[in-house]
Amino acid sequence: MSDQTDRLVRNPATAADLELFRQVEECLYTAVISDSLDELGYRNQALREFIRPLSPDDRFVGWARTFSYVDIYHIPPNPYAMEIDAIDSILPGEVVVVSTAGSLQNAPWGELLSTAARARGARGAVIDGLVRDVRKIQELEFPVFARGIKPVDSKGRGTIIDYNVPIECAGARVSPGDLVFADYDGVITVPAEVLPNVIQLAMEKVEKENGSRAELLQGAYLKDVFAKYGVL
Amino acid sequence: MSDQTDRLVRNPATAADLELFRQVEECLYTAVISDSLDELGYRNQALREFIRPLSPDDRFVGWARTFSYVDIYHIPPNPYAMEIDAIDSILPGEVVVVSTAGSLQNAPWGELLSTAARARGARGAVIDGLVRDVRKIQELEFPVFARGIKPVDSKGRGTIIDYNVPIECAGARVSPGDLVFADYDGVITVPAEVLPNVIQLAMEKVEKENGSRAELLQGAYLKDVFAKYGVL
Amino acid sequence: MSDQTDRLVRNPATAADLELFRQVEECLYTAVISDSLDELGYRNQALREFIRPLSPDDRFVGWARTFSYVDIYHIPPNPYAMEIDAIDSILPGEVVVVSTAGSLQNAPWGELLSTAARARGARGAVIDGLVRDVRKIQELEFPVFARGIKPVDSKGRGTIIDYNVPIECAGARVSPGDLVFADYDGVITVPAEVLPNVIQLAMEKVEKENGSRAELLQGAYLKDVFAKYGVL
Amino acid sequence: MSDQTDRLVRNPATAADLELFRQVEECLYTAVISDSLDELGYRNQALREFIRPLSPDDRFVGWARTFSYVDIYHIPPNPYAMEIDAIDSILPGEVVVVSTAGSLQNAPWGELLSTAARARGARGAVIDGLVRDVRKIQELEFPVFARGIKPVDSKGRGTIIDYNVPIECAGARVSPGDLVFADYDGVITVPAEVLPNVIQLAMEKVEKENGSRAELLQGAYLKDVFAKYGVL
Amino acid sequence: MSDQTDRLVRNPATAADLELFRQVEECLYTAVISDSLDELGYRNQALREFIRPLSPDDRFVGWARTFSYVDIYHIPPNPYAMEIDAIDSILPGEVVVVSTAGSLQNAPWGELLSTAARARGARGAVIDGLVRDVRKIQELEFPVFARGIKPVDSKGRGTIIDYNVPIECAGARVSPGDLVFADYDGVITVPAEVLPNVIQLAMEKVEKENGSRAELLQGAYLKDVFAKYGVL
Amino acid sequence: MSDQTDRLVRNPATAADLELFRQVEECLYTAVISDSLDELGYRNQALREFIRPLSPDDRFVGWARTFSYVDIYHIPPNPYAMEIDAIDSILPGEVVVVSTAGSLQNAPWGELLSTAARARGARGAVIDGLVRDVRKIQELEFPVFARGIKPVDSKGRGTIIDYNVPIECAGARVSPGDLVFADYDGVITVPAEVLPNVIQLAMEKVEKENGSRAELLQGAYLKDVFAKYGVL
Repeated sequence: MSDQTDRLVRNPATAADLELFRQVEECLYTAVISDSLDELGYRNQALREFIRPLSPDDRFVGWARTFSYVDIYHIPPNPYAMEIDAIDSILPGEVVVVSTAGSLQNAPWGELLSTAARARGARGAVIDGLVRDVRKIQELEFPVFARGIKPVDSKGRGTIIDYNVPIECAGARVSPGDLVFADYDGVITVPAEVLPNVIQLAMEKVEKENGSRAELLQGAYLKDVFAKYGVL
Repeated sequence: MSDQTDRLVRNPATAADLELFRQVEECLYTAVISDSLDELGYRNQALREFIRPLSPDDRFVGWARTFSYVDIYHIPPNPYAMEIDAIDSILPGEVVVVSTAGSLQNAPWGELLSTAARARGARGAVIDGLVRDVRKIQELEFPVFARGIKPVDSKGRGTIIDYNVPIECAGARVSPGDLVFADYDGVITVPAEVLPNVIQLAMEKVEKENGSRAELLQGAYLKDVFAKYGVL
Repeated sequence: MSDQTDRLVRNPATAADLELFRQVEECLYTAVISDSLDELGYRNQALREFIRPLSPDDRFVGWARTFSYVDIYHIPPNPYAMEIDAIDSILPGEVVVVSTAGSLQNAPWGELLSTAARARGARGAVIDGLVRDVRKIQELEFPVFARGIKPVDSKGRGTIIDYNVPIECAGARVSPGDLVFADYDGVITVPAEVLPNVIQLAMEKVEKENGSRAELLQGAYLKDVFAKYGVL
Repeated sequence: MSDQTDRLVRNPATAADLELFRQVEECLYTAVISDSLDELGYRNQALREFIRPLSPDDRFVGWARTFSYVDIYHIPPNPYAMEIDAIDSILPGEVVVVSTAGSLQNAPWGELLSTAARARGARGAVIDGLVRDVRKIQELEFPVFARGIKPVDSKGRGTIIDYNVPIECAGARVSPGDLVFADYDGVITVPAEVLPNVIQLAMEKVEKENGSRAELLQGAYLKDVFAKYGVL
Repeated sequence: MSDQTDRLVRNPATAADLELFRQVEECLYTAVISDSLDELGYRNQALREFIRPLSPDDRFVGWARTFSYVDIYHIPPNPYAMEIDAIDSILPGEVVVVSTAGSLQNAPWGELLSTAARARGARGAVIDGLVRDVRKIQELEFPVFARGIKPVDSKGRGTIIDYNVPIECAGARVSPGDLVFADYDGVITVPAEVLPNVIQLAMEKVEKENGSRAELLQGAYLKDVFAKYGVL
Repeated sequence: MSDQTDRLVRNPATAADLELFRQVEECLYTAVISDSLDELGYRNQALREFIRPLSPDDRFVGWARTFSYVDIYHIPPNPYAMEIDAIDSILPGEVVVVSTAGSLQNAPWGELLSTAARARGARGAVIDGLVRDVRKIQELEFPVFARGIKPVDSKGRGTIIDYNVPIECAGARVSPGDLVFADYDGVITVPAEVLPNVIQLAMEKVEKENGSRAELLQGAYLKDVFAKYGVL
């Protein structure tokens, strides 16, 4: 429904993007990103608790490419055209973020889409809905976070209605081009306009937490540690 | 409540049954069975996403033996008579499929019933409800799919009201004698009247998916692969 | 809100306590404790099925120290004072039991509180709510049972309103000083006044189950085993 | 499932019963009964908020006759025998209390059962489930409290499994012979063993509330009124 | 998304249609229609219990014109074009049936659409979602059944994605051209292919119920009445 | 928990306030206020659909006085002190807005608090929770919007933890001093900082809607009306 020209003006990840992704994955974690977003007044950027990784070590960072699915109750003519466009135009450095209005009827993601997305350079996927072919996705080592698992196809159960538009995914607003970061604690989405600030605050907070942790491990009382480092 | 004679007219698995089970377990998976059922117009045969295996490698195929439990709020006289009959009359090649009206109060399944069912030849169990003794069930290597885990007994919490009758289990209708197939993607139930057609369609679809997967892994675009194989 | 004097009259675990904990952990399991409580008329002592261990081998026994959190929608002045008191006054042999009115907005527990609680002698924690820093909690080997995982801080999302008062945690009433026992089947809370009876009944029931299990494993019919041992 | 002899040992309402019903209906209301039950330690006697009267003036008092229904997924042989017995044996002074395990699939109550129950002397009905024929039930002036309305028959959707046994109805335990009282604020069930105490406490509390109300209506501050009457 | 030509091939109600509507409204009710559909094996034609009339006397019969809405999280360009087409092409004798995937965020229906639909000849509307302007809709005397009431606009909250396609509305499948009948007991949808059979069966059942009711009102026992008329 | 001085710095309604309330009640409705808030980017100001008036003509406008309750599971010492303060310090022109974290256990509002609040000058109340004494509240003609009805007291079920602080009430953030407006379509809360803009936009929109309505009533097509007035 959105204008096609508008929807596609995006670019593959640059070397600077890749360096940023490396830094986030190696030095940061979703919890410290969440605290930094809180400090800047962005308090609803973490996805709901029901989005979990398919494999315990799944973890990724990238730019959001959003897909919006809805449930349907008939098989429309030419059902796959827009979905194929959406997948084939994925750019290196992107992560697929799928909304389904919380559908527990449709499993819009599986092995073939994982394989195709990875071939285009996708770094992972978040599905606010069901997925299938989980064993095979795990073998691909393509990281996927999802709401649940069910062995059903999307044909006649759901359809994509738009892509690269703002969506609601598991309780948070995700816009194309947000930085999406997923680790074992969950998934967080960082709007582009605050990204540099968020990274800087997070780096600073990691240091304080390191001090606090070290003292607590040695048996210090929380009262004293909090007085010294100001983090909890 | 159903007529006892009617309820028990079933037979142990034959050699042909065992060969069919082997073929399904080795060559097929629940997702491709689901797609084949869809094609034949049977679109609600997969159980809901909240039914998950107790162990990640749990997997089984067999004929459905259904049990229907309901919640109760008192301890009836002679509470175990029908449950004992239901378990002791299980036939080799069957799988136990338990409905509880979605009870989160009662855990009707545990180690002792798993042990007794396995002794009679059961190949696995699906419980649309809670289970307990999970560590010991895992040690038995008896595959069980369930809705959740809680350490409570069924006495005074639930009772079996019938067995070998049609039930609703996790959103799907399961009838005695359906082929029930469970793997990591979930559980699917195949009505006896379409079983041969389903197996044949599934075998054909597996082949197409193999071709499609191979090309996507080599970096092909989804558009071209879909044009060639017609599967997604 | 409760009277501070009253709230703190508790003692560190004695040698007898530690011996009791060892006995429960080694010889018993939550399911047999639940059955013994049932027999004594305490039928609602198991927490709901959505409380699960962060690591599959998490398991603990100890005296309940309760914390009561509620959701908030502003940042109160001096938000951490009571929480710090509650943590720093934990006694050796206690387990932290947190209620949040089932909040899915607030993650009141994470790595720093786990570290601080362990430093005071806590043996584990049950959170009827969300937690974060899960990988680091797993590395600490501090056993935590929780409702879910989300990377958000409690600041401006929730606040402790009292501790060492009766709470409702995942559907069960937990009072300070209850014996709380958690294993893979879930969490059960034993009121102090029935603890000796419960332990004795549980020991007896374990023996009967051992006999019943042995015969079922050898292929006996459930009818005969139930007639002999009277347990199911 | 319960023993038939046991189930039917009940008696029609006596003149003393009718005088009690009149007194409760004229002088008391469910809220003051609830407070009196609280004082005696019976704190879970009010049905959940989703049970509402079909007509705003519906109101009744009587002895509980319980019916227990469950959902089914086939049409059993001779489906109505127990339901007909249950209805035809209703005694004057009873109220029908129906549990369905919270079914939103089955509407077990409608015009014909209302008519038949009234013919036997029933004073009203509470259905923890759906009902139909609502306009005609309203015309009968037979008071019915229910969870919702849907125009479907029970045949093949639900079946009675027992009657005159303890049930759970909308979150409260109801036993045969409890006094059930329903007015616009909801439904409350009073166990027989505390009935005289409850009535006496309620009568006393009504008086205090009358004093408190009178002063508040004249503009008194709550602080002063509470100091004087001790009720809120 | 469906083909426009296909979607619009419908006709205004004929004189025969109007006669049918009159007959249904005057002689029948949703419950007896539901029973007749059951008898023909169409067992899921009644909408869920949460769809209620805005005014207690709301009642209508007509041919289904379906609208399918979904939630959105941005304001698309030209958001009203398809909605205006859908409304302006309503034909005399139709009833609007709106699905929203159960949205509690969007209120897609209000006074202006009610007025416009009535101007085109619509006989009523069923909204599986929220509505607003309820007082003004009541003044119009345009009958509307809905899931709830909230004073929010659809702009930026939801959008129509198709119309005159099969939808799921409150748990039932509704196809364009179904006969939709709504009264105080709820809403039922009759597929065109069974309509004549359903009407005939319903007429016959009404007669039996009249006999049964008359005898029960005179105090007959249910057992005897059921033996005579075979309806319950 | 908040600072008492801070919490009480509020003033009784002035003559200008009363004139504003009159204007809103007579000329506006919640739907047009919601649209004006949307236009200014305040898109989450309407309470959820489950908050409904106790009487169909209930309607009010006033400044928010917030109360925050939570569920409890014991009877604290001196349970009513803060609640009495909160009620007795209500100022003329205020409306009581109660949050309970969506409790379905506690009914914190009833006849006596309604009477006391009205005596202090409250213009109405919104309870995101249960209420009791509904018939008597209706007789008082004190307008109350609530989530449901149950005849239970708050003692031992819930307690106030703070007042005149920001709360979440039925899905919307309400701060002390917001303008709260309730009519049959629901409840909307207007932050003080946008109030003048909202009133002005709403007045303008009412006029456009009057034009649009008049033409639709005369049979105009929606397309033409929308082209002319730009409202839907």
